[in-house]
Amino acid sequence: MTERFTAGRVPDAGIAQLFATEHRWQSWLDVEAALALSEADLGMLPTEAGDAISAACRTERLDLARVQEGIARTSHPLMPLITELTRVVGEPHGGWVHWGATTQNITQTGDVLVLREAHRTILAQLGRVMVSLAELTEQSAEVVMAGRTHGQHAVPITFGFKTASWLDELERHGTRLQELAPRLSVAIIGGAVGTFASFGKHGDRVQEAVADRLGLRPMRVPARSITDHFAEFGCTLGLLAGTAGRIAREVYTLMKTEYGEVEEPVPAGTVGSSTMPQKRNPQLCQDILGITAEIRALVPLMLESLHNEHEADHTPSGMFDALARACILTGDTLERLDLIARELVVNPERMRRNLDLTGGAINAETVMLELGTKIGRQRAHDIVYQAAQKSATDHSTFSSLLAEEPGIAQHLTGAEMTALLDPASHIGRSADIARSTATEGRRASASIHCWLAGTDRGHSPVRKTAG
Amino acid sequence: MTERFTAGRVPDAGIAQLFATEHRWQSWLDVEAALALSEADLGMLPTEAGDAISAACRTERLDLARVQEGIARTSHPLMPLITELTRVVGEPHGGWVHWGATTQNITQTGDVLVLREAHRTILAQLGRVMVSLAELTEQSAEVVMAGRTHGQHAVPITFGFKTASWLDELERHGTRLQELAPRLSVAIIGGAVGTFASFGKHGDRVQEAVADRLGLRPMRVPARSITDHFAEFGCTLGLLAGTAGRIAREVYTLMKTEYGEVEEPVPAGTVGSSTMPQKRNPQLCQDILGITAEIRALVPLMLESLHNEHEADHTPSGMFDALARACILTGDTLERLDLIARELVVNPERMRRNLDLTGGAINAETVMLELGTKIGRQRAHDIVYQAAQKSATDHSTFSSLLAEEPGIAQHLTGAEMTALLDPASHIGRSADIARSTATEGRRASASIHCWLAGTDRGHSPVRKTAG
Amino acid sequence: MTERFTAGRVPDAGIAQLFATEHRWQSWLDVEAALALSEADLGMLPTEAGDAISAACRTERLDLARVQEGIARTSHPLMPLITELTRVVGEPHGGWVHWGATTQNITQTGDVLVLREAHRTILAQLGRVMVSLAELTEQSAEVVMAGRTHGQHAVPITFGFKTASWLDELERHGTRLQELAPRLSVAIIGGAVGTFASFGKHGDRVQEAVADRLGLRPMRVPARSITDHFAEFGCTLGLLAGTAGRIAREVYTLMKTEYGEVEEPVPAGTVGSSTMPQKRNPQLCQDILGITAEIRALVPLMLESLHNEHEADHTPSGMFDALARACILTGDTLERLDLIARELVVNPERMRRNLDLTGGAINAETVMLELGTKIGRQRAHDIVYQAAQKSATDHSTFSSLLAEEPGIAQHLTGAEMTALLDPASHIGRSADIARSTATEGRRASASIHCWLAGTDRGHSPVRKTAG
Amino acid sequence: MTERFTAGRVPDAGIAQLFATEHRWQSWLDVEAALALSEADLGMLPTEAGDAISAACRTERLDLARVQEGIARTSHPLMPLITELTRVVGEPHGGWVHWGATTQNITQTGDVLVLREAHRTILAQLGRVMVSLAELTEQSAEVVMAGRTHGQHAVPITFGFKTASWLDELERHGTRLQELAPRLSVAIIGGAVGTFASFGKHGDRVQEAVADRLGLRPMRVPARSITDHFAEFGCTLGLLAGTAGRIAREVYTLMKTEYGEVEEPVPAGTVGSSTMPQKRNPQLCQDILGITAEIRALVPLMLESLHNEHEADHTPSGMFDALARACILTGDTLERLDLIARELVVNPERMRRNLDLTGGAINAETVMLELGTKIGRQRAHDIVYQAAQKSATDHSTFSSLLAEEPGIAQHLTGAEMTALLDPASHIGRSADIARSTATEGRRASASIHCWLAGTDRGHSPVRKTAG
Repeated sequence: MTERFTAGRVPDAGIAQLFATEHRWQSWLDVEAALALSEADLGMLPTEAGDAISAACRTERLDLARVQEGIARTSHPLMPLITELTRVVGEPHGGWVHWGATTQNITQTGDVLVLREAHRTILAQLGRVMVSLAELTEQSAEVVMAGRTHGQHAVPITFGFKTASWLDELERHGTRLQELAPRLSVAIIGGAVGTFASFGKHGDRVQEAVADRLGLRPMRVPARSITDHFAEFGCTLGLLAGTAGRIAREVYTLMKTEYGEVEEPVPAGTVGSSTMPQKRNPQLCQDILGITAEIRALVPLMLESLHNEHEADHTPSGMFDALARACILTGDTLERLDLIARELVVNPERMRRNLDLTGGAINAETVMLELGTKIGRQRAHDIVYQAAQKSATDHSTFSSLLAEEPGIAQHLTGAEMTALLDPASHIGRSADIARSTATEGRRASASIHCWLAGTDRGHSPVRKTAG
Repeated sequence: MTERFTAGRVPDAGIAQLFATEHRWQSWLDVEAALALSEADLGMLPTEAGDAISAACRTERLDLARVQEGIARTSHPLMPLITELTRVVGEPHGGWVHWGATTQNITQTGDVLVLREAHRTILAQLGRVMVSLAELTEQSAEVVMAGRTHGQHAVPITFGFKTASWLDELERHGTRLQELAPRLSVAIIGGAVGTFASFGKHGDRVQEAVADRLGLRPMRVPARSITDHFAEFGCTLGLLAGTAGRIAREVYTLMKTEYGEVEEPVPAGTVGSSTMPQKRNPQLCQDILGITAEIRALVPLMLESLHNEHEADHTPSGMFDALARACILTGDTLERLDLIARELVVNPERMRRNLDLTGGAINAETVMLELGTKIGRQRAHDIVYQAAQKSATDHSTFSSLLAEEPGIAQHLTGAEMTALLDPASHIGRSADIARSTATEGRRASASIHCWLAGTDRGHSPVRKTAG
Repeated sequence: MTERFTAGRVPDAGIAQLFATEHRWQSWLDVEAALALSEADLGMLPTEAGDAISAACRTERLDLARVQEGIARTSHPLMPLITELTRVVGEPHGGWVHWGATTQNITQTGDVLVLREAHRTILAQLGRVMVSLAELTEQSAEVVMAGRTHGQHAVPITFGFKTASWLDELERHGTRLQELAPRLSVAIIGGAVGTFASFGKHGDRVQEAVADRLGLRPMRVPARSITDHFAEFGCTLGLLAGTAGRIAREVYTLMKTEYGEVEEPVPAGTVGSSTMPQKRNPQLCQDILGITAEIRALVPLMLESLHNEHEADHTPSGMFDALARACILTGDTLERLDLIARELVVNPERMRRNLDLTGGAINAETVMLELGTKIGRQRAHDIVYQAAQKSATDHSTFSSLLAEEPGIAQHLTGAEMTALLDPASHIGRSADIARSTATEGRRASASIHCWLAGTDRGHSPVRKTAG
Repeated sequence: MTERFTAGRVPDAGIAQLFATEHRWQSWLDVEAALALSEADLGMLPTEAGDAISAACRTERLDLARVQEGIARTSHPLMPLITELTRVVGEPHGGWVHWGATTQNITQTGDVLVLREAHRTILAQLGRVMVSLAELTEQSAEVVMAGRTHGQHAVPITFGFKTASWLDELERHGTRLQELAPRLSVAIIGGAVGTFASFGKHGDRVQEAVADRLGLRPMRVPARSITDHFAEFGCTLGLLAGTAGRIAREVYTLMKTEYGEVEEPVPAGTVGSSTMPQKRNPQLCQDILGITAEIRALVPLMLESLHNEHEADHTPSGMFDALARACILTGDTLERLDLIARELVVNPERMRRNLDLTGGAINAETVMLELGTKIGRQRAHDIVYQAAQKSATDHSTFSSLLAEEPGIAQHLTGAEMTALLDPASHIGRSADIARSTATEGRRASASIHCWLAGTDRGHSPVRKTAG
């Protein structure tokens, strides 16, 4: 609906133009071309007809105004394009255009070509974000900060451990996107309802040939009512949106005045408020939260759209619109996420100060476990619990309360206690996890790029073949 | 996303342009004008400043390209508009522009003006649909057809009884839309976070004055985090979408080849399929089903957006975008609904034929009740149940089975049985309900129009006052 | 699904038992009783039959095991109850049980009785929460704290101003719940599909009489496919859930270690963690966030359920289940909200310390506006903007930067500057708003109680009339 | 909420009991046992302690009433179970219970064991449904019926072609469920926030050992905030629900009185209505539609739950509850689907009659294509279009109109035309597709069973190892 106000400073992922009407028409024409060539190969129509049709299947050769006008007149999404294509092909071959096909064969297969491009763009973006995050994770591997659960200080971590948890989720989304790809990239050329009846004795060979030319796989059952592969892609974008939203929410929170631990990039000249000159707002994070909420809200729409009645109803168009929107929004999300990952300002000094907010209680588990080896876990727990709860309710200092506790002094020296209360000494394997996850993330990103290269046939192989 | 292919034959409700950027900017300028005039009245700024600012608050007086460029540069939605307005007002009054206000004061109040227009348009459309449906309901008051429950023939009804149930729901939506109007039409002029601090000693009087000029009510607590009134409007559009979808689904079903009882308008020249010449598809109904599914899917987004943190976050923009989309889609829905209601082809003859599909079993309850008065309800039920179930499982005729049933012949003559099995004689109060609901619907529609007339202050009273 | 672990310390709202099977059966029996008595009054059945049936309509008079067994055998929700009731009534009146009614007439009308009880309970709870919040709001009217937008310090407010924004939303939900009540509390006694056919010449008088006995209103069109009144109730609970979630999220945030401004009640002995003795978690807030997310997720289910096909399908049962669940969860939410509102620990000292986090920049607007009256708004903005942004990026102190700024010193004395930078002096009308909203909230709560008293007819007036 | 009224005749999938409290507790105890044994192996605690704890980890050895009471008192989900376990283990080993673990380590890993069981049950059910559908598909491979698009007759198909499209979707869901299994079945034993700090020098080896004992994989980053694997399972159940709903909607529709082509099993003695003796309702289909709508509505809840803040918040419990509910409902769905697939009554005779409803127009494409080879596609289309549209608007017969059309008679003999208008001759590859899909479905089902056998380690390997 309304544009994002950060559009001026965030790169365009290039997905919106994939779904622009004219690009979709070209993709539909690519399918018409592949159909004509395939049918010519099979002897269903003259070779010259196949060539003539294929050559005309370029939006720049058509009078698109006629097509627009035809849609308004007939209320049909494809027929006017076919009519115009037929006109351009002219006699004697025009009559062979669209032979044996139904509208959805062309539009759905063409839209799959568009979705494949969007899918590849998203996967490439994701690979890029993973590298940016791997960098951030490695650099922050040893930056100590408070770990928090339920909004309360828990035990110390490093910032790299936190970002590793983001990278780990993103990597799985990459895997999911690769796994679903072969299910998504399928051609549906089964005629009116998918029985191949209109192709006569050639049956399913037309679909095979068209799919092959377009670098797709034929549908096992080319029923127009089958849409689970689209909804699966949508669900996966919903999952990715969930993770992106989680990251943005976290950065938004850590950037709050009360935290001050990180800051998303705020370019000089940015105006945060029309009345409060000091404002530096987490605009990218808020963008992501808003955008991904919208993506998530599209998922039930797609699940509902699975309820396709009989051999077809209009539902696929609802599915496609929702999926197109989800792809565009995912592109917007990933560009912002990449900016954040690459330019996040990390403030280790403030993290350190925040660690002290509980007067040592953030290390209560450490003290309890050490004490437990000497006086038993239960007694240790009780002593530390009393001190920690007391410090919280009467705002006294946890470490002082411990020092005053007779049950502790006899077991732990002051120096031992000081060591136990040092957050930096109790981060466990945070740094190792950060580093190994960064390495793994880079590996997974490289693997995505290999995958993209390995499956890169371009999206309109028709003309290459025809050329 | 993609346009509807019926757009060429369905009137434009005019709601999309209300939400177009330039119209929103004008509404925001209306608020800036009302603010300046009100502050001048209160002595907060020179009367000449108020007049100068108010006069400049017209998009046609501004260089909108500068505004666009400024948004790209600052990533701020309003500041560039203020800057340009300030430039046009010039010295010495430009400095008083936007005095004491924060961005959201202007944008939200301006957007409320837009929403009020959309709300009025929708209500007017709804009133129109109600009259069309009242007409249809009255005309069909006595058109007998099968009543169906769980997809199975139940007892006879009339078509007007069915459409009365639609009209009845729509009337309640009209009531809901009227009830929420005063909650929706509120001005938020509380300064940075809603405490009126920037208005000094004038406090809440600025908000009162601005609200009064704009025909709105002041917010009791002008907190930027309050958005329940927007979500309420969204929920009500969701409810309306549910009813519209129900109607469309019903018409879609009754239009199926197996039913053939009604047909939505299919203009000559419409192409139903690129390969099947016989196709006459329920395009308007399918449009409505798709559009209203999208509206319903926006509701959870709005409910989630209620979670506004602290004194403000970006959520209101997500709320507004969703609401704007819901308004536009509601307009599209109601135009299609009106077309269907006005031009629906009703086929009483086919309804009559369908009534005979069960060989009389659709009147099983009638027979049972009558027989029950003679041999007791339970025995009557058992006899009729056996006959009806048998006719279903072995495809024999219900009325013949009854005729062969000795338990019946002694209590009911053939003529009595024939009368009991006549669907047309057992429609209960269907026709009365249809007619009284039509009357009530027309009354409610008239009442909507009175309400609209009574609250019609136009949406930019500023200039009237200023003129 | 799983119980809440705080169930042991949160009062039971009593709504779950309203929806327990046996209570629903009693409500259905209440409708059967009202039906029999009404039909007897109209002369449709013997007076003695009406009395006998009415007297038997008590779950304690029936053998409920038989009913359960019958449901398992017939897969029918009501028939076995009718059969058992008929058995208990015995000859000669048993045959008149359920005369002319269809299942949904009884179950839906009975369920409306249950929903009315739940609605009243919720409204009463809401009134209670409003009083608790009014108390908190009044007490916190002058407790100064940071106002925050987009997670960043904005300008000062008071805590009472913040809670007033909650109270204000809740009050509107109370209004909505009252407005929808007459639409919700309707009897549906129209026979098989709503045409009154089975009531013969008595037509809609049976429904009127039953409704009157039960304190309900008759449906204008008693079509079984009409469910908008249920979905409206559900949407309103969704809106209320949104506000409750907003409050819980805010308390959760303000309770974070980094904020420390409030704490929800943490009873002594509560265990926050099995391994971290210091943990004091916001359990009630997290409960509310989880519960209300579930309520919101039920709304689309109800909107989808509006798509009732033909004269009835099973959808109403899906609608009812979702609505029942939403009512129970709303009760759980409001009990927790009340606990929080009544026992929240507020920490003004920490609020004060947090106000100092920006070194005065939280008053940047105040300085800018004052300076603006002397050197013009734009120049004032630029000077203050530079100082504030610089303090943020190089972690210097805003007030010191201002003091060093030559453009300021000549216009503002040190004392004036100190006064401008005092948060407590710049809270605008925060306290007034808090107090007036508290007063208004109490008034609205009292009005809810009057409304409840005024509409209190009890939920089974049948027996009163019959007695 | 309310039970399904068909529960008496549908087998219990056995999933609800997996999620019953006591079974979950046992699974949690299994994790405590695996933890103690693993830590003993690593030398972190005495071997005897490991054995003693492991031996006590049986619900039948604990006093569960104490646990219940403890939860009510402490509002903690696990601590009371640990306390009771500690008590049963007794001195001197009790103190080693739960060593170094946090609550979520135990509950989440234990719940993963439960989810793994549910996942396996669902996959096994799905395999069973696929075989039932394969059978139906094969048997119906040549049963000719009308293909329909947009609710209108399109071209002929066979019933087996239709069911093949269902089987094809289900097979992909099976693949998805297998692909996600390794991501789902992971142990999270990272201590308080996932850094392994509490395991000292043993670091991640504890998690590895526990995972190995339980037949799970260790989490790469055992962060408690990671939940994408749960949401992925939920989304996949949502997709499966979409397909199941599609099938149920289709059967529901084909069973309508106007269609009469199939009937779901209606056991003798089933009561369809309390007032209409003839009713035979599609109860199983309606069950599935209601249940799957509920499953789909859980998906957004899970996607929203991905927004886990910091190192943990309560969200995982919301995620788990939703997922548990989705699993139970999926079990209910698949049992009903299997019943329908196995016992569906197919009525070829009625299908044949319905094929004639359009007077031959269902073969319009066939006529057009044949005529097109003689007079060109466009002229052929125009002639057939005119005839078909005319037959629709004035209720004349398509085949008669064709016979009267001079442009046709000269190109097609009466016999040729008769052949072209025979639906049974124009089903394309419907039968082949049905048969090959059935074969493929059986193969995929067998493959599922192999997979289940290959991954069958039982869900409590602890005791096996310990025994």
